[in-house]
Amino acid sequence: MLIKEINEIRKVIKEWKKEGLTVGYVPTMGFLHEGHKSLIKRAVKENDRVIVSVFVNPTQFGPNEDYDSYPRDINKDLKLCEKTGANIVFNPNPDEMYFDNRSTTVSVSGLTNVLCGLKRPGHFDGVCLVVSKFFNIITPDRAYFGQKDAQQVAVIKRMVRDLSIDIEIVTCPIIREEDGLAKSSRNTYLSEEERKAALILSKSLLKAKEKLEKGERNPQIVKSIIKDLINSEPLAKIDYVELVDDDSLENIEYIDKNILIAIAVYIGKTRLIDNFTFNIKKRMVF
Amino acid sequence: MLIKEINEIRKVIKEWKKEGLTVGYVPTMGFLHEGHKSLIKRAVKENDRVIVSVFVNPTQFGPNEDYDSYPRDINKDLKLCEKTGANIVFNPNPDEMYFDNRSTTVSVSGLTNVLCGLKRPGHFDGVCLVVSKFFNIITPDRAYFGQKDAQQVAVIKRMVRDLSIDIEIVTCPIIREEDGLAKSSRNTYLSEEERKAALILSKSLLKAKEKLEKGERNPQIVKSIIKDLINSEPLAKIDYVELVDDDSLENIEYIDKNILIAIAVYIGKTRLIDNFTFNIKKRMVF
Repeated sequence: MLIKEINEIRKVIKEWKKEGLTVGYVPTMGFLHEGHKSLIKRAVKENDRVIVSVFVNPTQFGPNEDYDSYPRDINKDLKLCEKTGANIVFNPNPDEMYFDNRSTTVSVSGLTNVLCGLKRPGHFDGVCLVVSKFFNIITPDRAYFGQKDAQQVAVIKRMVRDLSIDIEIVTCPIIREEDGLAKSSRNTYLSEEERKAALILSKSLLKAKEKLEKGERNPQIVKSIIKDLINSEPLAKIDYVELVDDDSLENIEYIDKNILIAIAVYIGKTRLIDNFTFNIKKRMVF
Repeated sequence: MLIKEINEIRKVIKEWKKEGLTVGYVPTMGFLHEGHKSLIKRAVKENDRVIVSVFVNPTQFGPNEDYDSYPRDINKDLKLCEKTGANIVFNPNPDEMYFDNRSTTVSVSGLTNVLCGLKRPGHFDGVCLVVSKFFNIITPDRAYFGQKDAQQVAVIKRMVRDLSIDIEIVTCPIIREEDGLAKSSRNTYLSEEERKAALILSKSLLKAKEKLEKGERNPQIVKSIIKDLINSEPLAKIDYVELVDDDSLENIEYIDKNILIAIAVYIGKTRLIDNFTFNIKKRMVF
């Protein structure tokens, strides 16, 4: 079922809550792919009712970013959601979401001035604002986010903790194409040639992972492996390659805790991201 | 009943909600007086269950303000709440409310860089943060605020609107001593002599109100009346005297809409505030 109005979705959710049903929530910007599908599936498995929001959020795009050209297909999204077992697709109008004289900011410092936050100033303020609003409208028991946007997950978790928001944040693994490319709505921007070149992201991360598993603990060496491989691809241009503490997203001198390795790479004009976490404690047990 | 732990109060509230009971919430910094009592009474009248939080919130005090000396008396507060019909007094520890590496800010711009916000930088960020947290912990149907803190009411209302928080904000009138002084926990700071001098706040506002009712529409003239009267009191020192739009808190050139007249005055070392709103539309009907 498609719902566009805030008051209407609130009514439905209040009825569910009266019946004691649990609610799972999957926030998306639409143009859903297998990655989103995996979030919805997990939410369906763990909750009585599932809501998927489809909203290309203007406040998280910079002035020179791809808000206008971001791919949209609400009818396809609706079908995917229905087929996957979601109960409601919430697709609000930007006009109802944002007042002209809106003046409230929700901001997470520290975690947001690194990685994508450094390259996209204001992006995470926009994410925190819209997620706060959806959380307040939907009041789910659990919300599902993809590990693909690793920094987003860290920021949302911190916001939820700091604001005492009573929602469990569930992180789901990155879903990849058969050849390894992380699924993304932005992959549709790629030409055939660029699509091949884009493989360099997952390939370089895989090589770094192998090195870590063999015992490498110097962040500079691990980063160099990734950078060198990406630089060998003529269509690729590195935006960033970072190796940080998994929780605080701070740089580290030596790999002796859980880390996040995150990269952003331009393939032609399209900016793609990918990452993996490396759990040092688990390894030390072996 | 006194509750100190977030998890414990959440449990109680969830049980109430299951039973379909409505919840009213009165946020306070304790040392409760008749002003708070009027909020609690109203909440008791309008809701099945009422929670009063008593929390001297460190994040809304500036470094040179009175956080340490702010008056506290939880036992007296408990008795007043019980007698007035509140069901729970929530008195959390600052340690459970704030993590050392807390990094989330909730900020309302525009409305906060005037009046008290101008004189107390960061104050309203602290208010928005703690109110956000309490709203997320208590999830009330209605929350009750005193018109005494007029700017706080305007800021909270804006935050609630902008973040789609599903809570009705109820504003209750200022409660005064018999001689007109607005009730405030900070009145206890006043010596006998200062207590008498403090009357100049309500007196000057009353005079301005009379002038407005007689048709004065020039903000400068109305402000001058107040300033002149306060300046005639030797123990009083004006912090600010402002006449602003009731909703946006912006300065106005001519009084042709609803306005808020708000003042802050030092009586000795104690900073007191008072205000009134003047509803121009109502008057124009007559």
